[in-house]
Amino acid sequence: MSILVVGSVAFDSIETPHGAVDHCLGGAATHFALAASYFTQVRVIAVVGEDFTPEHEVVLTRRGIDTRGIERAKGLTFHWTGSYAGSLDEAKTLGTDLNVFETFAPKIPDAYMDSEYLFLANIDPVLQARVRSQMPHVRMVCGDTMNYWIADHAANLAKVLRELDVLLINDGEARMLAGERNLVLAAEKVLAMGPKTLVVKHGEYGATSFFSARSFDGGVKMSHPFRAPALPLSEVVDPTGAGDSFAGGFYGYLASQSEMTPAVFRKAMFYGGVMGSFAVERFGTERLQAVTRQEIDERFKLFMEISHLEYAGG
Amino acid sequence: MSILVVGSVAFDSIETPHGAVDHCLGGAATHFALAASYFTQVRVIAVVGEDFTPEHEVVLTRRGIDTRGIERAKGLTFHWTGSYAGSLDEAKTLGTDLNVFETFAPKIPDAYMDSEYLFLANIDPVLQARVRSQMPHVRMVCGDTMNYWIADHAANLAKVLRELDVLLINDGEARMLAGERNLVLAAEKVLAMGPKTLVVKHGEYGATSFFSARSFDGGVKMSHPFRAPALPLSEVVDPTGAGDSFAGGFYGYLASQSEMTPAVFRKAMFYGGVMGSFAVERFGTERLQAVTRQEIDERFKLFMEISHLEYAGG
Repeated sequence: MSILVVGSVAFDSIETPHGAVDHCLGGAATHFALAASYFTQVRVIAVVGEDFTPEHEVVLTRRGIDTRGIERAKGLTFHWTGSYAGSLDEAKTLGTDLNVFETFAPKIPDAYMDSEYLFLANIDPVLQARVRSQMPHVRMVCGDTMNYWIADHAANLAKVLRELDVLLINDGEARMLAGERNLVLAAEKVLAMGPKTLVVKHGEYGATSFFSARSFDGGVKMSHPFRAPALPLSEVVDPTGAGDSFAGGFYGYLASQSEMTPAVFRKAMFYGGVMGSFAVERFGTERLQAVTRQEIDERFKLFMEISHLEYAGG
Repeated sequence: MSILVVGSVAFDSIETPHGAVDHCLGGAATHFALAASYFTQVRVIAVVGEDFTPEHEVVLTRRGIDTRGIERAKGLTFHWTGSYAGSLDEAKTLGTDLNVFETFAPKIPDAYMDSEYLFLANIDPVLQARVRSQMPHVRMVCGDTMNYWIADHAANLAKVLRELDVLLINDGEARMLAGERNLVLAAEKVLAMGPKTLVVKHGEYGATSFFSARSFDGGVKMSHPFRAPALPLSEVVDPTGAGDSFAGGFYGYLASQSEMTPAVFRKAMFYGGVMGSFAVERFGTERLQAVTRQEIDERFKLFMEISHLEYAGG
């Protein structure tokens, strides 16, 4: 079934210990859409500038991604400059040129209206809420946010949180949102703000999902969290987009299934980790463009082997 | 089969956000021995002072732990004072009174000589090496160390590392020992120093084991790491001894099995996490003294439920 994603399509200029790239295709919606495209149909709502060429667009369309919702505006595409020179754990933002993104007003093409899954990537919660209100009949809403919106746009964010089936954020964001250091207590507080389920990403340590009584509507109750591993990697070339790729693998798999059971949810967590692990192997979206379904399936098995007591190797 | 552990038996004065305790029984060998005692016979080599009373000793003997190797010396027992007031992630050491530990010269009782498993808890690598050389016929040697020995006693530590079947340390120690930030590369470097297998503890994120071609002598090769979860806990009363309790559960389970296969090793990693999760629920060794085998088995199942794709809940 189709996922509609609204978020940023951007150019990233990135420096890591493995090198540097200038103006490579990036943005949360881009990473999310590419990762999810291996599982289901994806439709993108975003805005780009005149520097976004057919060569950029084909990166998406070649993966079967519907780009009719990508609006062309006068000016330049959103441009982010960041460095991981000090540590691969966290990017240091050197520049954020919003450009055409500054006046982004998401418009949903008619052809997108029958999308059943909605992903609200990390953008202004006012825009997230606006898109959500225009898609009242979606089956599921999943969203992301970041420290900037948590700190300075709390009231707007609160409205979005009440609409979410799943909120996907990282440790620091969960603790900040809850104002609580202990992750279990923080998760309880965040779930009380609205999301039925919370997925907390731990970077190289994997991810944990926390469930509420509303996680599986009318179905089984999950009284404990679920932890999915990340793959220990000897080389992280570029961490940019890892979280969005996790979200794409996670949500893409969920949307490919007929119903969301605990077993389906757990597999989705693993597929999130799988796509995140591919994303960081090359700069920008290079690896996500070229990965094959067979590689994805093999890595999924590897994720089981590194985390399950019983496995093929004995 | 019997484990011989050499390490500290101490008194800890601890402050955490949940309260404070003065001179409660602690030390690496104590936590290790209590955790391991639920799986196998444990024998302790340590030194205590005149303030170590029969009431302290019975904490160990009640669990069937052999204390004949605990030497009584004139003076006071090793006393550590620490605070987790700022963060439960890391203790701030406020005082280290070595007392009788300063002149500790481990002596191995004859009755201990048939021990098949040796655990070298975190003490001066010179003492670790001395004990190891007196036990040349043990089946397996597992050891711990810390930043102080890594930084200032590298040559002595190098000798111990060459003797180890398994080295159990945390992320920071692994990175420091290898001089390498990436954990996979750090693990490769550490394994090249001697240990056949490396277990890296990640605190609330679980633990990862890294294998070498020598991990399972003549047996199956493990070409990838293994990740065991930690239990997300809403209340960590006192983190002191969590790592030693992990080691006790891990090594105690290994020693209880007739051979170390990859499947046995993986279960041992889970039991390590289980015992670590109990240890932090109360101050000092309180929880490790009182836990039951049934509670351990139930928590083991919980560890599977939070980490495995298929589980009883559906």
